[in-house]
Amino acid sequence: MARKIGIIGMGNVGAAVAHGAIAQGLADSYVFIDINERKVEADAQDFKDAMANLANYANIVVNDYEALKDADVIISALGNIQLQHNAGEDRFAEFPFTREAVYQVAQELKQLDFKGILLVISNPVDAVTALYQEFTGWPKERVIGTGTLLDTARMKAAVGEVLEVNPKSVSGYNLGEHGNSQFTAWSQVKVKGQDITALTSEEERQNLFMASMKGGHKVFYGKGYTSYGIASAALRLVAIILSDAQEEVTVSSYQEIYQTYLGYPVILGRQGVEAPVHLTLSAEEKHLLQGSADLIRNRVQEAVAFLKEKYGNTIE
Amino acid sequence: MARKIGIIGMGNVGAAVAHGAIAQGLADSYVFIDINERKVEADAQDFKDAMANLANYANIVVNDYEALKDADVIISALGNIQLQHNAGEDRFAEFPFTREAVYQVAQELKQLDFKGILLVISNPVDAVTALYQEFTGWPKERVIGTGTLLDTARMKAAVGEVLEVNPKSVSGYNLGEHGNSQFTAWSQVKVKGQDITALTSEEERQNLFMASMKGGHKVFYGKGYTSYGIASAALRLVAIILSDAQEEVTVSSYQEIYQTYLGYPVILGRQGVEAPVHLTLSAEEKHLLQGSADLIRNRVQEAVAFLKEKYGNTIE
Amino acid sequence: MARKIGIIGMGNVGAAVAHGAIAQGLADSYVFIDINERKVEADAQDFKDAMANLANYANIVVNDYEALKDADVIISALGNIQLQHNAGEDRFAEFPFTREAVYQVAQELKQLDFKGILLVISNPVDAVTALYQEFTGWPKERVIGTGTLLDTARMKAAVGEVLEVNPKSVSGYNLGEHGNSQFTAWSQVKVKGQDITALTSEEERQNLFMASMKGGHKVFYGKGYTSYGIASAALRLVAIILSDAQEEVTVSSYQEIYQTYLGYPVILGRQGVEAPVHLTLSAEEKHLLQGSADLIRNRVQEAVAFLKEKYGNTIE
Amino acid sequence: MARKIGIIGMGNVGAAVAHGAIAQGLADSYVFIDINERKVEADAQDFKDAMANLANYANIVVNDYEALKDADVIISALGNIQLQHNAGEDRFAEFPFTREAVYQVAQELKQLDFKGILLVISNPVDAVTALYQEFTGWPKERVIGTGTLLDTARMKAAVGEVLEVNPKSVSGYNLGEHGNSQFTAWSQVKVKGQDITALTSEEERQNLFMASMKGGHKVFYGKGYTSYGIASAALRLVAIILSDAQEEVTVSSYQEIYQTYLGYPVILGRQGVEAPVHLTLSAEEKHLLQGSADLIRNRVQEAVAFLKEKYGNTIE
Repeated sequence: MARKIGIIGMGNVGAAVAHGAIAQGLADSYVFIDINERKVEADAQDFKDAMANLANYANIVVNDYEALKDADVIISALGNIQLQHNAGEDRFAEFPFTREAVYQVAQELKQLDFKGILLVISNPVDAVTALYQEFTGWPKERVIGTGTLLDTARMKAAVGEVLEVNPKSVSGYNLGEHGNSQFTAWSQVKVKGQDITALTSEEERQNLFMASMKGGHKVFYGKGYTSYGIASAALRLVAIILSDAQEEVTVSSYQEIYQTYLGYPVILGRQGVEAPVHLTLSAEEKHLLQGSADLIRNRVQEAVAFLKEKYGNTIE
Repeated sequence: MARKIGIIGMGNVGAAVAHGAIAQGLADSYVFIDINERKVEADAQDFKDAMANLANYANIVVNDYEALKDADVIISALGNIQLQHNAGEDRFAEFPFTREAVYQVAQELKQLDFKGILLVISNPVDAVTALYQEFTGWPKERVIGTGTLLDTARMKAAVGEVLEVNPKSVSGYNLGEHGNSQFTAWSQVKVKGQDITALTSEEERQNLFMASMKGGHKVFYGKGYTSYGIASAALRLVAIILSDAQEEVTVSSYQEIYQTYLGYPVILGRQGVEAPVHLTLSAEEKHLLQGSADLIRNRVQEAVAFLKEKYGNTIE
Repeated sequence: MARKIGIIGMGNVGAAVAHGAIAQGLADSYVFIDINERKVEADAQDFKDAMANLANYANIVVNDYEALKDADVIISALGNIQLQHNAGEDRFAEFPFTREAVYQVAQELKQLDFKGILLVISNPVDAVTALYQEFTGWPKERVIGTGTLLDTARMKAAVGEVLEVNPKSVSGYNLGEHGNSQFTAWSQVKVKGQDITALTSEEERQNLFMASMKGGHKVFYGKGYTSYGIASAALRLVAIILSDAQEEVTVSSYQEIYQTYLGYPVILGRQGVEAPVHLTLSAEEKHLLQGSADLIRNRVQEAVAFLKEKYGNTIE
Repeated sequence: MARKIGIIGMGNVGAAVAHGAIAQGLADSYVFIDINERKVEADAQDFKDAMANLANYANIVVNDYEALKDADVIISALGNIQLQHNAGEDRFAEFPFTREAVYQVAQELKQLDFKGILLVISNPVDAVTALYQEFTGWPKERVIGTGTLLDTARMKAAVGEVLEVNPKSVSGYNLGEHGNSQFTAWSQVKVKGQDITALTSEEERQNLFMASMKGGHKVFYGKGYTSYGIASAALRLVAIILSDAQEEVTVSSYQEIYQTYLGYPVILGRQGVEAPVHLTLSAEEKHLLQGSADLIRNRVQEAVAFLKEKYGNTIE
């Protein structure tokens, strides 16, 4: 019954998600939620002022949690980028802010009879996704994060630039934490029909990995935040979910074997994670993935314990 | 030979224009120009990080005036929004900044053998458009501004909200200066088959006009600038130009009868202004339009005189 | 909950509707219904063969009436174009075929707990729309036809060609029957800010009207049927309904004053006809509209009587 | 300078290419060429009748070879499908028709100072592409065919259906002739992170291959031709070329090592084939590819000899 997207947090990222979606006519109706009422009303009005000149119409509702009930996808884009600045770009520096915010938002969300997908962009994304799942109690397959999809896109852009090919024609993934413990699974990367290991030296691959993990640096310091890359990653996931496309894509998903959320490919559709993907990684890659998983799991456990102590165990 | 768009000035508006265009796959290649090298490089990189997740590819070049040569449209989005804030939202408060910037940019542009359209968003848009035409020496029909297209969209949004109809289903225009001397030509506004004068009181129309002229207030003060509405207006014009659509649309165009640029409908196509539109305005509307024209013409003459005295008459 | 479109009748028109929609990614899932199982399966497979090369995914189900239940829009495109050929392009020549087909399809449809819009293309469209409403018993505002929207588009194309302007920049409508009793309401047509009566002679307008009413001739005889024009008209209506756009648009709608379906502008949204539009027509135009209404109403009454006698009065 | 597409041959396939492109607003202007003047004029008029209801405008010119001069892409979609029907779906059955047609069309094309890409759909596509290159004398990298891109899409659709995954998430290719000597290079096919050989039996793969090669059967016999699958394949290539996307994609390209055109992945961009792709095929796959190449090369040589004898060697 038409397409509806909710966006919680209308900062630079949430607004870029909304703009990208509205500019391409992705959905029929939107719910914007933000504690900064003037900002979110301003964005909504700015989009309304655009309607006479856009090809597609869209209905916009502001700060109405109830209206999220029948959304196809709810996107969490809340955050506090200043904390990352203060900390030299460590995404966990946002966690003291986001874990609280997520807890509060989850109290609202869990009252909805929501059948759609909750897609998390808020950082540190793997841990935040886990908290959302914990405090909404929603099924793990229907709560996912953008994970290393953006890092993967940056890896593909870096490889594509060096080997003169479209990023989409580079296969492979960055796996694990959307943060400093991630890695590029070079065993999976093919370009122009060749394994990338046959086309590049180990040093070159190390540089390409750094470009993928720290690819946001130039953007982050050049404009103070990153927005278009992450918004496009999120909107690709939204399009897959809306059309029940059953596409293989890297998201922050709950991986039973690692007992945590982390960036890893899955088959994504209208029900969220529809089927697993099994990569044949090298021993070193498995080791790195385990390390990344341990880090995320520990951070999530700490945060859950902290929030439960603070607020009581509200999930019965 | 494919579609190419240049954007001069990658502030909030220029970046929103770029994002809107790239999100919908409007063009094949882009040239971004900004004196803040780090900011424009950051935006370009952010878009490159999006490519693996976007449906359409786009090539992006940064700070290369030469690359503008074969653009279909060059958009001027440079400005200094802080000056408007300081002055309580008077668009002419930006003029001391933009007239200088335009002069400098025009020195670069006029060296190009440019066959496309120069589309100006920079404020005060009517005067700035006139300066661009003066200092590039390009034909008047190929130098245009967004004019009152955004104000018209705001009027349609306001009327549409009150009369419960899509803004696109409201005909009519705001005319004159994209600024305080503009007016809504109510004689031209029809809704649901009726003249709006039959559906609303004079007081209601006055409120609707204020909503259209000052519609940016809420946006401006809520987020510090306006972006999506104006970007969508500009991109609609770009789409019309690219496809040579011969569409009737309000732009800041040179109107011989008033000897100045001002917001008035024209037929727009690949050659810019392709044909005039002749509205049958009321006596009062004609009077208002004359007043608005006089204001713009005077300001332009002052600025041209100022710049010629400062830099010498460089247009032979 | 995502967008779903049903299409009943996958002949040239139904297939063009499906292709146009899928090519632009309009919906997430489709239900195709046709009594020619091999043809409809062939079209579905042909679209599946396209998926790897399309930007947007779409799910397709064939010949499953039950799957129409939660569609946003069901489009009736069934027909027998050969009957029009035999009769020299009289749309009522299809009626003996379509009235039977509609009766049968309505028996299936009325068993669905359908909350969407039924959009009829099948000819003679006004009468067929009326029969669908009669035999499904669905609310009149949720059963509409494409009516004179295509004729209006042809009028705009013809006027636009003569006056060198985009068809979208021509306001106005063809009203009444999507057939020989229709007329162009010249009192409503404006171009380039002028009434068309000021820009053209009566003879020229008569030619323009003939081009609009008989505009399909060249297409019909050149390729044996018309498809892209009518499919685009239908898909525009679908887009308006999906996004609840409240747009003013000409459709075959039930007009209380004339006690029949006929082509006339309405405000269209997610609930179908959301509000009326009141045109101020000339005396002659009113007379023509009354004549067209009488013709349609009589044909509908005959067909209803015929079908009720044949099948019994199945609507209690 | 905007996007322009030429289509030579407006049968079912050419018209589907045009409709798909126009429905999604892919280009700004189109040139349709067909010897059946009434049919091509009918299609053009049908599209013009659509313009008032489409989001994007497009200019259409009919039967003007000169207008192809500055096209970005010229698509050859001419053919005679009846010959395939008569011959039980052997694409070479069309060759006596298409080789003549190509020769005639090439006489027109080679007089143009054409800088774009010639994209061939006409069957037998590998041989026909070779003839176009031979008789226009245009550079081999700028004359390409759709090759096994459709077969590859059919393989991906078949694999995706069996393994419950989006066709786009299936990597790999059908290689060689777009005809009976093609094969699926199973060594290159991965799904859900696994080699397909680990997920399927040899018998299952044989069935999947047959589905890919003969996937058109159901469509061909169900509606008499295939159109949407091939049109979507062609339009994907057009989009890559327009945006200079440097994407890896299977096309009929001239492969030096085999001295012939055949279906094989390349890097495609604005200059056509921009770089080679080197697959590591199994010994059996290499053998199959060699056989397919030999077949195509021989057929091309015969046709070139025949045409040169008939018309004289007109390429100096």
